[in-house]
Amino acid sequence: MTPMTADQINAFFAEGFPGRTGALVVEHADAVSARCRIRYDESQLRPGGTLSGPTMMGLADSAVYALIFSAIGFSPLSVTTNLSINFLRKPKPADLIAEARLLKRGKALVVADVLIRSDGEDAACAHAVVTYSIPPATTP
Amino acid sequence: MTPMTADQINAFFAEGFPGRTGALVVEHADAVSARCRIRYDESQLRPGGTLSGPTMMGLADSAVYALIFSAIGFSPLSVTTNLSINFLRKPKPADLIAEARLLKRGKALVVADVLIRSDGEDAACAHAVVTYSIPPATTP
Amino acid sequence: MTPMTADQINAFFAEGFPGRTGALVVEHADAVSARCRIRYDESQLRPGGTLSGPTMMGLADSAVYALIFSAIGFSPLSVTTNLSINFLRKPKPADLIAEARLLKRGKALVVADVLIRSDGEDAACAHAVVTYSIPPATTP
Amino acid sequence: MTPMTADQINAFFAEGFPGRTGALVVEHADAVSARCRIRYDESQLRPGGTLSGPTMMGLADSAVYALIFSAIGFSPLSVTTNLSINFLRKPKPADLIAEARLLKRGKALVVADVLIRSDGEDAACAHAVVTYSIPPATTP
Repeated sequence: MTPMTADQINAFFAEGFPGRTGALVVEHADAVSARCRIRYDESQLRPGGTLSGPTMMGLADSAVYALIFSAIGFSPLSVTTNLSINFLRKPKPADLIAEARLLKRGKALVVADVLIRSDGEDAACAHAVVTYSIPPATTP
Repeated sequence: MTPMTADQINAFFAEGFPGRTGALVVEHADAVSARCRIRYDESQLRPGGTLSGPTMMGLADSAVYALIFSAIGFSPLSVTTNLSINFLRKPKPADLIAEARLLKRGKALVVADVLIRSDGEDAACAHAVVTYSIPPATTP
Repeated sequence: MTPMTADQINAFFAEGFPGRTGALVVEHADAVSARCRIRYDESQLRPGGTLSGPTMMGLADSAVYALIFSAIGFSPLSVTTNLSINFLRKPKPADLIAEARLLKRGKALVVADVLIRSDGEDAACAHAVVTYSIPPATTP
Repeated sequence: MTPMTADQINAFFAEGFPGRTGALVVEHADAVSARCRIRYDESQLRPGGTLSGPTMMGLADSAVYALIFSAIGFSPLSVTTNLSINFLRKPKPADLIAEARLLKRGKALVVADVLIRSDGEDAACAHAVVTYSIPPATTP
């Protein structure tokens, strides 16, 4: 399969997940890392004025999905088997940026970790480790 | 503090998370366990016709949030510090039911695990372990 | 393959892991659950007079290994891909008992969770979730 | 409290965990990262000729324990609350080196991740995320 560019991944996300259109943007993806941004939106807030956990979990999951497309090509039926996230600091009401790093690219399993920061901040507000199972037909 | 009933928790969820109103229902909460249902909605689907991972992660997180309210009372500033989820089987396009079980009720940390099933199915489609940090003012 | 009994698994553990002989005993294994005991030994203590984390992690890992042998037969090259453990209470200086419960038996991945208690206690001192990868040749 | 040097931490490990003496060495610790080495020993082998999972789990746990001592000083009663590890590749029969990175230094919780490699290899054979609870008396 042909590795996908960030633009191609964004086009797929817009088509495959219309409810999220515009909110999630893949800014970079190069087979060993990927960076995604989720635009700030008041509907993500939870009591305490902070962004919700599910927003960050979905972002981490999507960043690794994008990383996989950039590494092995279009494999939309790849599915998350495990996601573990630590919430480290309350994010500001601002865009969130996720940086995914490839840890393992096996035939059947891909593992990556993800640091999530508020735009303009150095300290991470969450760190996730995500495992995807890659269906046989789509492994090179 | 006074432990909350399922009805009281539902009223808080409807007020605090208006975007989710109607989708998530606490069906039972008794200080050591809690059961939540999320109503099936096509917007939760992902490629492959299955319910999205973030839907299940949010459900697991909410089920433990409800469990905490039923155990220690209203502590809305309790925050998730860690969530780890294994996706076990693809859920059907149906309501999802989460059963949370209290594992530890410490002064500062509450730990619970959650089994998620499709309504009418025996086999679990996901299993999560969730840790919340309880702010000092709200511990009994 | 033929599912193994607890006695057969104990014989393999004694031969394959001679360093542990006598310490770890599989007390029960029936394809969907397994119970293992690790005998108390002062060398497991850490500062504070409590049993070490690695002792409990190794016990959880072994309990799921035994569960797999009882479910699918002898597959010694099955390997742990993920282990996540929450330490809930300090264990007493006593035997530890691990109860593993099968969550998923897939072709390639087996997932189980494990509750660890001190002998004679009700409250769990640790809860783990363990994923094993099963090599192709050994799946039925 | 006074942050500890690698030499001071090694002296404490030798005294507090006599069973491990000589096997585990803290090579570097600077408050935001720590590097530990565990010397190769045939007793760590498991079927398949690979190093055992518990060996790597114990190493990850110790690397973060050392990192905490270098960050906040001597706090031996700090305890692991959560450890999650992904096994990525089979390690060679060689020394293992763990690199811990501080993710969060809170008043009550410290979170770090750890990459474990075989000596002389680039690819990681395991990645862990470890949370410690720091007892109140020892926080600065």
